[in-house]
Order: sequence, then C-alpha cells, then structure tokens
Amino acid sequence: MSGWGPPPWASTQLPAVEEALGRWVPGAATDDLAQAMQHAVLGGGKRLRPLLVLATAEAVSGNVLQTLGLAQRDGLLRCAVAVELIHAYSLIHDDMPCMDNDVLRRGQPTVHVKYGEAVALLAGDALQTLAFELLAGADASWPAATRLHWVQTLAIAAGAGGMCGGQAIDLAHVGQAMTQPALERMHALKTGALLHASVMLGAVAGGASAPQLEHLSHFGRRLGLAFQVVDDVLDVTADTATLGKTAGKDEQHNKPTYVALLGLDKAQRYAEQVTDEALRALRASACASPEALQGLAQWVTRRQH
Amino acid sequence: MSGWGPPPWASTQLPAVEEALGRWVPGAATDDLAQAMQHAVLGGGKRLRPLLVLATAEAVSGNVLQTLGLAQRDGLLRCAVAVELIHAYSLIHDDMPCMDNDVLRRGQPTVHVKYGEAVALLAGDALQTLAFELLAGADASWPAATRLHWVQTLAIAAGAGGMCGGQAIDLAHVGQAMTQPALERMHALKTGALLHASVMLGAVAGGASAPQLEHLSHFGRRLGLAFQVVDDVLDVTADTATLGKTAGKDEQHNKPTYVALLGLDKAQRYAEQVTDEALRALRASACASPEALQGLAQWVTRRQH
Repeated sequence: MSGWGPPPWASTQLPAVEEALGRWVPGAATDDLAQAMQHAVLGGGKRLRPLLVLATAEAVSGNVLQTLGLAQRDGLLRCAVAVELIHAYSLIHDDMPCMDNDVLRRGQPTVHVKYGEAVALLAGDALQTLAFELLAGADASWPAATRLHWVQTLAIAAGAGGMCGGQAIDLAHVGQAMTQPALERMHALKTGALLHASVMLGAVAGGASAPQLEHLSHFGRRLGLAFQVVDDVLDVTADTATLGKTAGKDEQHNKPTYVALLGLDKAQRYAEQVTDEALRALRASACASPEALQGLAQWVTRRQH
Repeated sequence: MSGWGPPPWASTQLPAVEEALGRWVPGAATDDLAQAMQHAVLGGGKRLRPLLVLATAEAVSGNVLQTLGLAQRDGLLRCAVAVELIHAYSLIHDDMPCMDNDVLRRGQPTVHVKYGEAVALLAGDALQTLAFELLAGADASWPAATRLHWVQTLAIAAGAGGMCGGQAIDLAHVGQAMTQPALERMHALKTGALLHASVMLGAVAGGASAPQLEHLSHFGRRLGLAFQVVDDVLDVTADTATLGKTAGKDEQHNKPTYVALLGLDKAQRYAEQVTDEALRALRASACASPEALQGLAQWVTRRQH
C-alpha cells in the first residue's frame, strides 16, 4: 500500500480549484504583498480542504461541479478557496520566527524568508480577510442565508474558539507532557476545526438534511483527528524532501505528539481506527454519492506527505 | 479651542459600546489568548470607529440606539464592535517588532510586550476572525442581505485592497520621499478605508438611499484623510503622555508624513480644509439628524490625541 497518491477523483477536480485560487488571489506582479500572497497560495499543496468541500457537496447532491449552473459552481468554488486561504494564512503565520521559525514549506522558502517578516505578517492578514470577502461575495443564486451560514461556519472554525485557540494551547504546552484527551482537544481546534468546517461548508452547499449534517459533522471531526495523527507519524517517518517541509521538527521543538504519547506502531493503528470511525459516520449519513469523499478519507490516512 | 474632548453625544453612546466590546471579546481569564485579546480591545481608546457607525446610522434614521428594538440594536452594536476589532487587530500587528516595534499603546505596554510575540500574532488573527463572526451572527431581524453587505464592506476595507494594502505601501516607502498624491493614496487605504467603512456600515444599517450613500461615502473618505493629517500633526505637537503612544515616531522611523511634506502650519490648515469638505458632503446627504456625526467630524480635527 506504499506510494498512495491522491484518488483519481481528486485529479479531476484539482484544475478547477487551482484555476479558482489563481483567479481570486490578487495578481499585481509589482506589489510585494500580492506576490507574497500568491507565493503562499499558489505554490502547491495537497488542496485537501478544497477537495473536502467539493467531495462533501458531491456526496450530498451528486456531481456538483459538472451539474451546477455557472453561478452556483462559482459559489461552491468560493467555499473551496476560502478554506484554503485560511489554511494558507495560518501556515504563513505559524512559520514566522516568533512561532515555529520554519524556513521551508512545500519545498520552497517560507513567506517571511522570501519577503521579510513584515510582509509575511500582512500577507497572512490579507489572506484571512479575502476568505470572508469571497464567501460574502458569492453569486446571489445562493440564498443570502446560505452565504451567511458559510461566513459564520468558517469564522467559528478559524477563530479563538477554533484554529487560533488550538494554536494558543499548542504554544502554551511546548516542552510539557499532555494527556491524550488534552492532545485531542488541542488538535480538534488547531487542525480539526478547519477540516471539519470544510466538510460542513460542502454539506450546507450540497443541501444536506439535518440528520445528514449531524453524521457529516461527526465524520469531519474523526477525519480531522485521523489527519493529525498521520501528520505526527509522518513527521517521524518521512524525510524533508518528501514532506516539502522540515521533517522531525516536532521532536526538535519538543512538542507533544501522538507518536510521543503512544509510540509509532500504536499511533499508526490509532489513525486507522479513527478513519474507520469516520467512514462509519459517512455511511450513516446515507449520502447518495459518497465515493469521492470515502476516497479522500482513505487518502488522508495512507498519504505519504 | 484647546482641550477639545469628545462631543457630549459620544459620552452618551460610549457605555453601550464598551458594554458590547466586553460582552463579545472572549473572557476566559486563565487563557493567554483571551487575555491578550481583552488587553488589546478593552484597554481604552477613543472608539472613533464605533461612534462613527452609530452616528451615521443616527444621521440617516434618527436616534437609533434608543428607538430600535433590542434585537436590531444588537445588530448595530455588532457593526460598531466589528470595526473596532479590525482596528485593534491592526494595532497589535503594527506594534510588533517586525513592523513598528512599538512598546506603548494607550499608555499601556503593547500586546507583544505583555504576552510575547506569538500570542500577540494569534490575538490579532483571532480578533480579525471575531469581527466577521459577529457581523454574520447578527440577529435575523436584520435581513440576511444587509448582514452580508456588512461582511463584504468590512472585508473589502480591511484586506489587500484596503488597510493591509495601505500598510504594505507604507512599509515599501520608509525612508523615501512621497508626493502628496502618493501619500494620500497610501493613507486612503491604510487608515481611510476602515473609517470610510465605519460610515458605510452605519449608513447601510440606517437604511440610507442610494444618493445618501454616495454623499456619505464622500464624507467618509474626506474624514479619513482629515484624521490622518491630524494624526501626523499630533505625532509632532503632542507628547507621549497625552498620546498614550510614543510621540515623534514618524520622524524617528523616517516616515513620509503630511508635516514632512507641507510643514506644520500648512498641514494644520489642510486638515481644516478637508474637514470642511467632509462637512459639506454631509450637508449634501440631507440626512435627517446629522448633528452627532457633524460633532464627531469636528472632534476628529480638533482632538488632542
């Protein structure tokens, strides 16, 4: 099972995601801020969060990118891009010297290395703003209430009660032992909240029923946990060239991880167990076309970087 | 005319603004992130932007905080708080060592001095998110389209085409001469965009007509320019104790300012001229109750800090 790449479905969707990212991230080539934003967003990446948005919408309502009208397709791509922009902004700020002080990301110099710290700070700030601007500006063929729901879902996931809050817990525990429940609470916020939000944005866009939203919410939370456990495993087992970012930095920074807590074998088995729970929740949602989302969930566990 | 304080109208509104800020900025007292957010937001400040939101809504539609239903009042206060949160986040990030490296703000240590750079970075990030969360979450007695319009107005003002973009131009011109048009373009983005957005949020909430929106938009832009010219003057004429932030730092950082460009006397006269233009635009809007907004505009020019 080595060498698992993204599922074939992902490759059919990625061109639309990349095109939308390129269209909405400002492109004045002479401007440091715009260049830094582009460097952060357009330099590759798995695009897991946008793919989750699209796959969840498809699970609920069928092959949406092919069947939606142009204006509606635009709204769904805005959701996909918005979560990726929040993710990209968080990486810029996390890599800065006052946080993880990392110099390499996706095999490229990090934004502050290339453009300086001040521009990196602003580029992260502006990418966060752009995410909300995009969601609010979606085509009026999406009801205003749906667009507001998107803004609210993303904001709750990204803020002090979500991603930023998890990052703050992480900062406060460098060099300290954490129990497994505390570690899971931290990661549910730090990385889980945005992955969960990706699923929920897609589910709302796809028109999921209340019981479906509940099962998909559980799916999103277990998937977020599986993602983080695998992330900790890869930090130990993969090399820097494969990861595109500095390997071994968790241990170097003395960070609490699932590998530190459970050992490598148990952490790997735990990732598979949590993925199985996610897949059970997805089955329970009784979505009409869950195949692409199933494939993404399996890829999260088997990925090599 | 020395010693101009805020107009009496402002004092009657400030308790509601301060109460709303305290209610919406998270308060878990044991948490560094929440404490840093509170330190940045609740440590005083002129609250000019929230007051502009309320005064513009009142100009258009009468004494709104007193006459609106509770749920509608809540929505208007969310607008007022949201612009203040964007302002507060920008101050945290601007004060950081990689930007202006300032240690004093409103007479208190800046957030990174008190909580460290990493927490300051996160607190700014989370305050930005909270602004959009608040706007999207306003009571349903405000039409969803209005709430979306608020999100969009604030996002456009705060992002790469507004405040962050102006900050990037500022960074790129430290130590360089700027022409007056270039300086005005920079400030129209850096500080003007958010002051303009405050006026527009209040105007939309107050139900302004299309011609009123146009005149109020012009009012907001001239007011934003007047504010910045006065800011440059005060940096030279006021002392650190009165300002509550380090005086003389523009010259120390070799920043282009209106004082550097025009000299002190001409800069002061220019501020008054631009304020007069703003007041003419306000009269042209034919708002029913413009007195409070007039008073705020005059305070902007005559303020001592």
